[in-house]
Amino acid sequence: MTFPHRHLLGIEALRPDEITTLLDLADQYVTLNRLPDKHADALVGLTQINMFFENSTRTQASFEIAGKRLGADVMNMAMQASSVKKGETLIDTALTLNAMHPDLLVVRHPHSGAVDLLAQKVNCAVLNAGDGRHEHPTQALLDALTIRRAKGRLHRLSVAICGDIAHSRVARSNILLLGKMENRLRLIGPPTLMPAGIAEFGVEVFDDMQEGLKDVDVVMMLRLQKERMDGGFIPSEREYYHRYGLDEDKLRSAKPDAIVMHPGPMNRGVEIDGTLADDINRSVIQDQVEMGVAVRMAAMDLLAQNLRLTRGAA
Amino acid sequence: MTFPHRHLLGIEALRPDEITTLLDLADQYVTLNRLPDKHADALVGLTQINMFFENSTRTQASFEIAGKRLGADVMNMAMQASSVKKGETLIDTALTLNAMHPDLLVVRHPHSGAVDLLAQKVNCAVLNAGDGRHEHPTQALLDALTIRRAKGRLHRLSVAICGDIAHSRVARSNILLLGKMENRLRLIGPPTLMPAGIAEFGVEVFDDMQEGLKDVDVVMMLRLQKERMDGGFIPSEREYYHRYGLDEDKLRSAKPDAIVMHPGPMNRGVEIDGTLADDINRSVIQDQVEMGVAVRMAAMDLLAQNLRLTRGAA
Amino acid sequence: MTFPHRHLLGIEALRPDEITTLLDLADQYVTLNRLPDKHADALVGLTQINMFFENSTRTQASFEIAGKRLGADVMNMAMQASSVKKGETLIDTALTLNAMHPDLLVVRHPHSGAVDLLAQKVNCAVLNAGDGRHEHPTQALLDALTIRRAKGRLHRLSVAICGDIAHSRVARSNILLLGKMENRLRLIGPPTLMPAGIAEFGVEVFDDMQEGLKDVDVVMMLRLQKERMDGGFIPSEREYYHRYGLDEDKLRSAKPDAIVMHPGPMNRGVEIDGTLADDINRSVIQDQVEMGVAVRMAAMDLLAQNLRLTRGAA
Repeated sequence: MTFPHRHLLGIEALRPDEITTLLDLADQYVTLNRLPDKHADALVGLTQINMFFENSTRTQASFEIAGKRLGADVMNMAMQASSVKKGETLIDTALTLNAMHPDLLVVRHPHSGAVDLLAQKVNCAVLNAGDGRHEHPTQALLDALTIRRAKGRLHRLSVAICGDIAHSRVARSNILLLGKMENRLRLIGPPTLMPAGIAEFGVEVFDDMQEGLKDVDVVMMLRLQKERMDGGFIPSEREYYHRYGLDEDKLRSAKPDAIVMHPGPMNRGVEIDGTLADDINRSVIQDQVEMGVAVRMAAMDLLAQNLRLTRGAA
Repeated sequence: MTFPHRHLLGIEALRPDEITTLLDLADQYVTLNRLPDKHADALVGLTQINMFFENSTRTQASFEIAGKRLGADVMNMAMQASSVKKGETLIDTALTLNAMHPDLLVVRHPHSGAVDLLAQKVNCAVLNAGDGRHEHPTQALLDALTIRRAKGRLHRLSVAICGDIAHSRVARSNILLLGKMENRLRLIGPPTLMPAGIAEFGVEVFDDMQEGLKDVDVVMMLRLQKERMDGGFIPSEREYYHRYGLDEDKLRSAKPDAIVMHPGPMNRGVEIDGTLADDINRSVIQDQVEMGVAVRMAAMDLLAQNLRLTRGAA
Repeated sequence: MTFPHRHLLGIEALRPDEITTLLDLADQYVTLNRLPDKHADALVGLTQINMFFENSTRTQASFEIAGKRLGADVMNMAMQASSVKKGETLIDTALTLNAMHPDLLVVRHPHSGAVDLLAQKVNCAVLNAGDGRHEHPTQALLDALTIRRAKGRLHRLSVAICGDIAHSRVARSNILLLGKMENRLRLIGPPTLMPAGIAEFGVEVFDDMQEGLKDVDVVMMLRLQKERMDGGFIPSEREYYHRYGLDEDKLRSAKPDAIVMHPGPMNRGVEIDGTLADDINRSVIQDQVEMGVAVRMAAMDLLAQNLRLTRGAA
């Protein structure tokens, strides 16, 4: 088997060739999604449940569209509306859903590790749609597909990740993935937003944007979690934009054909200049969203294939 | 092509023969919806997204049922729950969804013109499900279908529209449609709730119900927006009902076979007498709801046909 | 016809052989739900609307999965978000939905009798998903299927129902069903939570758990409605657990192979010991959830068959 995984909990567990397998399949789904008729049958007869313990309109929509286009029966559970509050109850909720025989469980949770815990309790395939500061694997995979399609390769690139690295699961999953694929990584941000001991991961760390962006192929901006502003970490939106916000001027340090990425939703004028974000010659932000659906289709397709093999053998 | 439109943004852009084309197709869907098996495949393989920036249980349900019966993958986005607040962000949200390759985008928005703006930014077909005080085209089309089925024609009828005309997109779309089809229009309501310069549209304006309803074929009541009460516009519910609420007594001015309409949800005892609303010999209020699903099926079917033609040609 | 019902409003209207017919069909759906491909086509072309006027993540999810696996077009209406407050408006809402030609309407409502009232106003099949303190028929049916599969029969068993009997529609529907199938019933709980005149129903009433559980085959715990605590009915969670909470010690009174049931969601450490609830040698709580989907598939399948017969004849 080329993708021998029961769950997709993080990038950490994936080998480089498995990442390539998934991205190759996702490329095919990009083509499908551009056709007038967007249906395939990889998930027909399967039940997909989206359990979002944190709101995320775009990620949930992306998983929902991905599942429906592959023929799954998709169900959204509004977990905040329900009375889930304690860790104990998370497991009860998971066991209850599990008894309804879902095949794919897509879970977002505010606590790091909650999705792994849940995966140990259920019989179905679990996809991590973001857990605390831990991992957000489909985001890193869609970023990887976007880069590979824009740059023609996913190795030996110089990639800058800029912003609040310390609190970002997007950064963490991307650092893991891009490292596995042998790229050069440069992390840029205020020292207070840089994780301790990060230099040991073989990355370069910068406080200054223009220095950090020097000759990079890819500029990956992070969303600023505004609730962290004024908490001592960051002085103000205005000051942040002045020092770390991406604009034409700072971007001049990067390679002339460098691409600009952002996981969305954007704070225009805080972490990125609005005009630059909309410049389709530099920005691949809309492409990232498009790749998101395709990557999620590929991930669910591969996990479903494994499910069927396992059950057929049982 | 008999319905050469990319979007359905308002009645204003439609020609009389295009309205007839749409209503003829809707008639066929009325028949389908009454069968035990209600499926057709006009939208199979297409993705429909309902983006409601204003709550509307009934309109959203109507579009959702319409899409599912035609085989679309339908997704509801709870836009109020998400963090959409500024005009700028509306466009970002639209571009994000657009990158997921939806085919049909059904949008309701509290600001007049917001849906038109959004339609300029996306590749898919946009259906206006109500924008501010501007237009609500599927409501006017379902009203037209209801009238045509009840009266046997949709021209040379005398139609009274009663209530808060000034703030009503339902009234506006109906005035446009019924005018295009060469009907005689009478608008009835307090002068404070009548739009300035409306008489130039070739309509007659009345302050008195019995005078305004004289010999009409159709009585179209509007929902009273209660949040406008006590704001200087309207004295009280009781006083409003006394002067402008439809009851058996006032209805006597109309033709003996006049039909009574209301877009719902009704404020019984405010704009209409409850017993009259339930009288199936006079009231076609339930028919309007039934026609709503059929009209939305027809609109999405026609727009999808155009989408496929455009893409096939590209 | 073996299941000559238009609606499923309560257990009260069902004959023992009809209950058996439904459970036999549900057994087949249990098998289907355990397959990799879980699709059947009993509801293809039909529209199912879930109207929940009370939140219930698990029951709504169970009905939604059941409908989707049988091919229905399923729509959830968030009735609390909408402006439904008065009994009059409930009927208006029902008539509006009815005009959209749904085939199956699944309704939960806080008022006893509201679902029966609604069923009189619509053309489609109505399933009661719980109304006030009245009935919750699919819960009793899933409990019956769980017992029948665990014990090999559904008659001449000694069953204890424990907790707040007076306010529980689950208890009421179970008492009706288990009585019809000729089982011996023992009700255990504080006298303040025992309905007046219940002894006339041929049940035995106990205040003491160990006495009540003596030699029973089935122990059915009820969820404690915490909002009733401290209202004079019940002293405190701690005191309640001491006297009426199920633990290993109290369970020793029951037969050695007695099964433990709970409709969920559980208050661990209030009405049941957490370790006991998780003991798969005694607890069938997860099985109940699994049977829930199958029973709802069977119920909707049977009602849809009747719908088609009626309409075919018309």
